[in-house]
Amino acid sequence: MEPIWARIDGGFWHAYQTLVRERVLPHQWKAMNDEIPGAPKSNSLQNFRIAAGLARGSHEGMVFQDSDLAKWLEAVGYVLMGDSEGAPAVREHAREAVDLIAAAQQPDGYVNTFFTARQPGRRWTNLRDAHELYCSGHLIEAGVSMFRGAGDGKLLAVVRRLADQIDATFGVEEGKIRGYPGHEEVELALIKLYRLTGEQRYLQRARYFIDERGRNPNFFESEAKAPGFVSIFGAKPLDYYQAHLPVREQREATGHAVRAMYLYTAMADLVLETGDPSLREACDRLWESTTGRKMYVTGGIGSSAVRESFGADFDLPNDTAYAETCAAIGLFFFASRMVRIHHEARYADVMERCLYNGILSGISLDGESYFYVNPLEVVPAVCDRNGTYQSVKYRRQPWYGCACCPPNVARLLASLGEYVYHLQGDTLYADLYHEGILSAELGGLPVTVRQKTGYPRSDSITFEIEPASTAEFTLALRIPAWCRKPALALNGSAAKAAAGADGYTRVRRIWRKSDRLQLTLPMTAARIYADPRVRADYGKAAIQRGPLIYCLEEVDNGPALFRVRLPSNAPLAVEERPDLLGGIPTITATGKSPPPGSSGDGLYSERNSDLPLVDRPLLFIPYYAWANRAPGEMLVWVRE
Amino acid sequence: MEPIWARIDGGFWHAYQTLVRERVLPHQWKAMNDEIPGAPKSNSLQNFRIAAGLARGSHEGMVFQDSDLAKWLEAVGYVLMGDSEGAPAVREHAREAVDLIAAAQQPDGYVNTFFTARQPGRRWTNLRDAHELYCSGHLIEAGVSMFRGAGDGKLLAVVRRLADQIDATFGVEEGKIRGYPGHEEVELALIKLYRLTGEQRYLQRARYFIDERGRNPNFFESEAKAPGFVSIFGAKPLDYYQAHLPVREQREATGHAVRAMYLYTAMADLVLETGDPSLREACDRLWESTTGRKMYVTGGIGSSAVRESFGADFDLPNDTAYAETCAAIGLFFFASRMVRIHHEARYADVMERCLYNGILSGISLDGESYFYVNPLEVVPAVCDRNGTYQSVKYRRQPWYGCACCPPNVARLLASLGEYVYHLQGDTLYADLYHEGILSAELGGLPVTVRQKTGYPRSDSITFEIEPASTAEFTLALRIPAWCRKPALALNGSAAKAAAGADGYTRVRRIWRKSDRLQLTLPMTAARIYADPRVRADYGKAAIQRGPLIYCLEEVDNGPALFRVRLPSNAPLAVEERPDLLGGIPTITATGKSPPPGSSGDGLYSERNSDLPLVDRPLLFIPYYAWANRAPGEMLVWVRE
Repeated sequence: MEPIWARIDGGFWHAYQTLVRERVLPHQWKAMNDEIPGAPKSNSLQNFRIAAGLARGSHEGMVFQDSDLAKWLEAVGYVLMGDSEGAPAVREHAREAVDLIAAAQQPDGYVNTFFTARQPGRRWTNLRDAHELYCSGHLIEAGVSMFRGAGDGKLLAVVRRLADQIDATFGVEEGKIRGYPGHEEVELALIKLYRLTGEQRYLQRARYFIDERGRNPNFFESEAKAPGFVSIFGAKPLDYYQAHLPVREQREATGHAVRAMYLYTAMADLVLETGDPSLREACDRLWESTTGRKMYVTGGIGSSAVRESFGADFDLPNDTAYAETCAAIGLFFFASRMVRIHHEARYADVMERCLYNGILSGISLDGESYFYVNPLEVVPAVCDRNGTYQSVKYRRQPWYGCACCPPNVARLLASLGEYVYHLQGDTLYADLYHEGILSAELGGLPVTVRQKTGYPRSDSITFEIEPASTAEFTLALRIPAWCRKPALALNGSAAKAAAGADGYTRVRRIWRKSDRLQLTLPMTAARIYADPRVRADYGKAAIQRGPLIYCLEEVDNGPALFRVRLPSNAPLAVEERPDLLGGIPTITATGKSPPPGSSGDGLYSERNSDLPLVDRPLLFIPYYAWANRAPGEMLVWVRE
Repeated sequence: MEPIWARIDGGFWHAYQTLVRERVLPHQWKAMNDEIPGAPKSNSLQNFRIAAGLARGSHEGMVFQDSDLAKWLEAVGYVLMGDSEGAPAVREHAREAVDLIAAAQQPDGYVNTFFTARQPGRRWTNLRDAHELYCSGHLIEAGVSMFRGAGDGKLLAVVRRLADQIDATFGVEEGKIRGYPGHEEVELALIKLYRLTGEQRYLQRARYFIDERGRNPNFFESEAKAPGFVSIFGAKPLDYYQAHLPVREQREATGHAVRAMYLYTAMADLVLETGDPSLREACDRLWESTTGRKMYVTGGIGSSAVRESFGADFDLPNDTAYAETCAAIGLFFFASRMVRIHHEARYADVMERCLYNGILSGISLDGESYFYVNPLEVVPAVCDRNGTYQSVKYRRQPWYGCACCPPNVARLLASLGEYVYHLQGDTLYADLYHEGILSAELGGLPVTVRQKTGYPRSDSITFEIEPASTAEFTLALRIPAWCRKPALALNGSAAKAAAGADGYTRVRRIWRKSDRLQLTLPMTAARIYADPRVRADYGKAAIQRGPLIYCLEEVDNGPALFRVRLPSNAPLAVEERPDLLGGIPTITATGKSPPPGSSGDGLYSERNSDLPLVDRPLLFIPYYAWANRAPGEMLVWVRE
């Protein structure tokens, strides 16, 4: 099932995609070439040169450094889709990168700079730690994207040979390694390659990796006992790798959050391809665990910095949050598959929650600095001085020694056109509102569907339907859960807008040229409450308007944000601020706070020196836009 | 200045001292002999046997394992003080230990099992990490204590030779190592040894270590550049070791909290011996930083598990608190010196705060299990699943791989008689109320002062003064800061009880035999508020009665304690519970909470499903007594 693509050509996301093409990809190319003064070294390109025999030296950086370049190339493929003559400098860099990867490929198809340059005899001997299959997966995704977007078959040929080598190496058949990766990724990549090429072996190998995972005796335990096994990151509990149980028996999202998401995404992809009911049930359970009990209001997941992992149900601390950018991207992927399985808007609601909040916070407005960790509460002095907060940064960084997130944001933003619609039979589901155009076959005829909207800054979306001639099909429009009173007009006349049980409002008709459908999703600034089992949010509210979660920043509101109280009846006013942070709707309110600089009768006393409270004007900005001005405190959940 | 000692012979602390003699020391001896099934191995005794050539094998455990045995021996010395024929089994074990230490001493006086057994050529080559001077300091303290308490000169002779070897090795003189310890301790130990022996060299060497610390060029940086330097724990920021500045220039409590306290204690000891004004000013500043901005309400300090360190001012998280038992003990030591410098009750108030709360929480009621970390809020499911909380235990442990705290509690409890009074001229300051007897020279005559009290369970303390004949001197009674309305009666007649600016109420007279002074310190259950700059406690209250901080436990109050609200006007009732936890005064109140088991409309929704609140009966117990029943949640700071 190949995805359908819309070209995003205006509005909020087009600006980000332009940023990716013009600023992000060139910046990241420099970073991967170690050309950004003061930033941690990447060595990504240099490692490929060394592995290809084109440079001398030793492999440097993380064992999975190849994947940064792969994700960057994948992003390039999306950028060039429908614009294969654009971005000449980026195309030239991409050509250089593809040539290097091809040159570093071994005669049997194997590609991995760490093992090729450093430990050629030790390939595939540490699946638990060494990330070879993970890097291979990202290379495969890059090959698919570069072929689709740029029509470049060179990398596709490389990654097919790589996939063939993997297929020949792993499996239950005699003489093969009966293992699976410590960091999932190759599974979903092989399914992508299968979808592009139609080659069943790739689908079967993905299914093998999924089915084999977590069986008894445990592969990682056996592998670690092999003579000469060399640990890289040390043994961790098996649920860290989601290898504690066969995947169909897993009921709770556990361990490393990114790994979990890439696995669940692949499982859902396999359901889409095979319909496997027990696998679908596992996906449903893991979805409920992830999004019903372990997700931040921003769509961030993985609450613990220690092992970048899920915690217990409802353990969602705001100031020590990990909420890795990659994990929110992974949840977006998982959600995008779930909506295609179930055709229920609530899955796309999560895509939207992740995208506008926990993913977009991972990149600065200028595209050249990044967050790996996305806290919901920050006090800089505490982060500077208390090692418990050592992962939490309050300034985005130009690069990271472990730089998985920056190119992951780039590829996700560049690929958004793949996720805005999905198709089931002759029903076209509009999942993410955007300005752009889709060309698809609907009701047996070529149709273009154009969306025009300033969403999420404005609340109105116009659909212009242009069938080649008249065509009967259904347009299903997602009514976000946050929207109480949607309105719909067909060619100027009001139509039924209420969503069905699946969260979509449907318009089925014989569409004619120039049909116009106008959807209005009134956005009111609202208080959001967490389930009272969430300790960190208890007695607090978050502010949301449309898909955007808001926050307070010190630069607007002064320090000691933890003392702000927002009375439950304080009006929330929306105020457009074209001057601020690229033009954003802000939300203002009058809160309460003790006077600034108030202090106690000593550190502890019987007098509550907090009182009396005085009015405090508050300015909320969208969470994704924080940390683009003077560094300071930030707070999402405000006490009520 | 040798301390004056009271014999504690009844009441609250006598019960603990009996526990130390009867249960704690035998249990810890077993632990150090690796005889407790399931507990982490200590190897303390075995390491000495190996270093003495009496057993084969390799040194195991932490590099500072010798110090556990030293602190245990120090505790034995205190236990035997005035009871040198008591505790025969413990005495026999102590004799065995002293013989082993003597046998492990090298011909030149050096004692350290790690280097003797493992790296004999590398002595004194890593002062930053290797804890040789730290272990030496604890051995010296043990030698002093065993001589004082048990009249045992054997260990004293050993540690004098050790101190002489240290004196010959370190200093500014040519040929000596111009270094100082990564973990302070030897400084205060050398001053103790000086006080016992009158040997000036020990005082001078302590002064050298203090004066040299933090000078430029930094010794730890030079040391780490020496050829063949082998790091053990890795380089840390210099303020971790309080070696970032000369001590007289330090203005903020930084780094590893236990190290800081042992340093500040030694600095204050040096002030007591020399009167050095610039050092006194440094002590005053570091005191204000520690207790004015970085101390938990329990007297715990060092809020971060990462590097066991101080954080920023007012950064006192409750659930990720470190608050190591040893650090509270260190603060008790520092406070005990400060009260002797300044003769102000507020220093003894901190001694009391530490003792009854953050120290006593480190040991179970049965004396056989311990907390290293003393959080003020615990949710077991979170501790089990989120690695950020990995140091936080909700069950006391029988022993630790790094077992500094258990023998530290033992020696502190056993030595309490040293801290209950101090003397300045002919003023006897009563700092800690207890049941016991002091024999001292006052007004030029032998006098015995007996205290009788059930404190802190009761609020009345009777002083029976028995001079050899009439004697004129001042008795200064500490009025704790928590006590609003003290009352005093002299031989049955009311006397002025209000404290002076120094926090003491003074009675000066010509004392006669059978004079009776009765002090009443009415204890009301009160709400305590933190300075509003303490983010973690904002909007919350802690309950205190007398010197005891209280907490809620799940076993009494059910789960989800974070949802409990205690209205600011809810009455607090004191209820004696002789059946509970050894007989404690509990505090009851009616709080508010959402109904148990309440949940939200999904993880996030616009409805505040927390409401309506219902009454919830609350039972508070003293903080020190938590975790002695069924494991569960615990909470000190309750939202108001």
